[in-house]
Amino acid sequence: MRVVEISAFVAAPLGGATLAAMGADVIRVDPPGGGVDIGRWPLHRGRSIYWAGLNQGKRSVCIDMRSESGQKKIAQLITAPGEGGGIFLTNLPAKGWSSYDELKKLRPDLVMVLISGRRDGGIAVDYTVNASLGFPYVTGPEGYQEPINHVLPAWDAMTGFLAATAILAAERHRRLTGEGQLVELSLEDVGLAVTGHLGLIGEAILEEEARERHGNHVYGTFGRDFATRDGRRVMVLALTAGHWRSIVEATGLSGEFSQMEARLGLYFNNEGDRWRGRREICERLDEWIAARNLNNVANIFDRNHVLWGPYQTFKELVAEDPRASAANPLFAEVDQPSLGRYIVPGSPLRFGAAKAVPPRPAPELGEHTKEVLEEFGIG
Amino acid sequence: MRVVEISAFVAAPLGGATLAAMGADVIRVDPPGGGVDIGRWPLHRGRSIYWAGLNQGKRSVCIDMRSESGQKKIAQLITAPGEGGGIFLTNLPAKGWSSYDELKKLRPDLVMVLISGRRDGGIAVDYTVNASLGFPYVTGPEGYQEPINHVLPAWDAMTGFLAATAILAAERHRRLTGEGQLVELSLEDVGLAVTGHLGLIGEAILEEEARERHGNHVYGTFGRDFATRDGRRVMVLALTAGHWRSIVEATGLSGEFSQMEARLGLYFNNEGDRWRGRREICERLDEWIAARNLNNVANIFDRNHVLWGPYQTFKELVAEDPRASAANPLFAEVDQPSLGRYIVPGSPLRFGAAKAVPPRPAPELGEHTKEVLEEFGIG
Repeated sequence: MRVVEISAFVAAPLGGATLAAMGADVIRVDPPGGGVDIGRWPLHRGRSIYWAGLNQGKRSVCIDMRSESGQKKIAQLITAPGEGGGIFLTNLPAKGWSSYDELKKLRPDLVMVLISGRRDGGIAVDYTVNASLGFPYVTGPEGYQEPINHVLPAWDAMTGFLAATAILAAERHRRLTGEGQLVELSLEDVGLAVTGHLGLIGEAILEEEARERHGNHVYGTFGRDFATRDGRRVMVLALTAGHWRSIVEATGLSGEFSQMEARLGLYFNNEGDRWRGRREICERLDEWIAARNLNNVANIFDRNHVLWGPYQTFKELVAEDPRASAANPLFAEVDQPSLGRYIVPGSPLRFGAAKAVPPRPAPELGEHTKEVLEEFGIG
Repeated sequence: MRVVEISAFVAAPLGGATLAAMGADVIRVDPPGGGVDIGRWPLHRGRSIYWAGLNQGKRSVCIDMRSESGQKKIAQLITAPGEGGGIFLTNLPAKGWSSYDELKKLRPDLVMVLISGRRDGGIAVDYTVNASLGFPYVTGPEGYQEPINHVLPAWDAMTGFLAATAILAAERHRRLTGEGQLVELSLEDVGLAVTGHLGLIGEAILEEEARERHGNHVYGTFGRDFATRDGRRVMVLALTAGHWRSIVEATGLSGEFSQMEARLGLYFNNEGDRWRGRREICERLDEWIAARNLNNVANIFDRNHVLWGPYQTFKELVAEDPRASAANPLFAEVDQPSLGRYIVPGSPLRFGAAKAVPPRPAPELGEHTKEVLEEFGIG
């Protein structure tokens, strides 16, 4: 499969990187000097680690998009013949030379996936979409009054993965019928759809009481962060009765929790009751965990199959966690030109019938311009 | 395409709901009485809005999974003949009757997508994965010392969308080669891969200084929340020089910002400089926005193509925002048995070559047991 991508920031580039990591030939086209995201932070020695991460495994071609001749070249590249080709992933505004209607004149079976901020094609980005969806007002400490933004551009990432889904679905349709198509999606619709699937739109409509801010508690069941004696933190949950029994067994607090249940008239095998008794449960667990170092907690919890995990900073993640190292086959250490050596991920999808594509660095900007134009006979 | 799903909570059910919204026949199998997520909060009148949201558009079949005869029936259903069938999406532990090795004996071209918490098959959920990845320590107010959990189960949702991608990719491979396969993915690998693609793993390895907490500022450029005179909040960003010029024009503060640039030795068309001057920019914008009501700000910003959006609570979203209403073709109001009437989303993917599948309610638990068993001749 060959995908031509004209994109910026997270959603479309991640969609392309996802397909590249699965073995697709993804050709990202940028203007000479790079697009608006070429210098996006985080930087190292003035170069963007972000751009490198989102363009891993692609080929990079630079063509002037403002000139008519440049536009013609790009259109030729997008619509070049070949069974797996004719696939275009972009977040360009849907008009002019790069519109579906213009491009399909050159290749009637074109598959084009167009990502926009708003459904109407207007601008919106992850942070404006997130602001509108309600999450910032239920994130963060109880009693805090202001919105809290997420740092993870979650809507962008979901949209990127969904764009990969869209390309595969449309390519499937083309294989079955010969017919190409335009598939459109917007960040805001992705956000609204997920908010709906999670029940939060239904809740806001059906329930009189508004969802409140519950700090680090997991709404409607038992789960929160706890501090260990050595100043680390752990997340501990009981989403099921089985998880709850593991906590009881691990801590040896069976008697105390039974008394607590009797006193409160609750039955902690029920998730609603774990939620209602969360303050009392946390108070006792706070004490139990605060009396032990992380290692000790980890051993006891793991032995008892408790659903838990340590909090880690980004630095702790790369320094201490073998999952964020080349010991995890997800990663490989690569030489990223102008940035240096570090681990980069491959596809989190492990396909039994295909050898994994090894994690690859990003190209240098324009690295494949000559190669690609020659390959497709574009002069 | 027909997918049999045995799942719980968010990731696998959302993967199935995503395909169902695109027109696939998704059959979710649960034990009689429902699985561990049947009563998951948020609730309305004691019934789960969450379960309904994550199982929209599926057929629901109840079969006792503990009995050998039940297991045999489910295996038959998963491996029933038909070109678009033989696809199994699950987060069951990979062992016994429901393992790929056992099921492929019944249908050698089986496609199975198996979601686990950890790569090694161990348990992990969105909240433990998120704790380990570093985000909770950079989310929330500057100076705050403790981790802040996200409320949106972002890793779950991404994993769900990626599972849909995996099914389509494996089905494509089967169409091309006749070969089925097992595709495995874990929440933690999805989280690690995205954290890597965003450059945060590279940054933690390459840069000496750890990423800090920057409140609602968008790291490395200009963006933050602002309070309006009427007590609402807006998110305003300038990711590009064009966005910045829009802010300057909208506010009429060109002269003041020029003086600010001269005083600070910064040039706000550069994103790094917008980041360095963020406090000063925010101070002036704070004032400008605090002097105006939301409506007024909205009019001026929209006229000038400022990249901005209002914050909304979930209640405000459904009460005031036409995007979260049946006016948005993404949604339709449906009768959800035992919950009532409210809007539910369809697919955020708009396929040009196919009529949109209208948003559908979730089935009642076990609603299709008889129908499905008869359809596939399972006795």
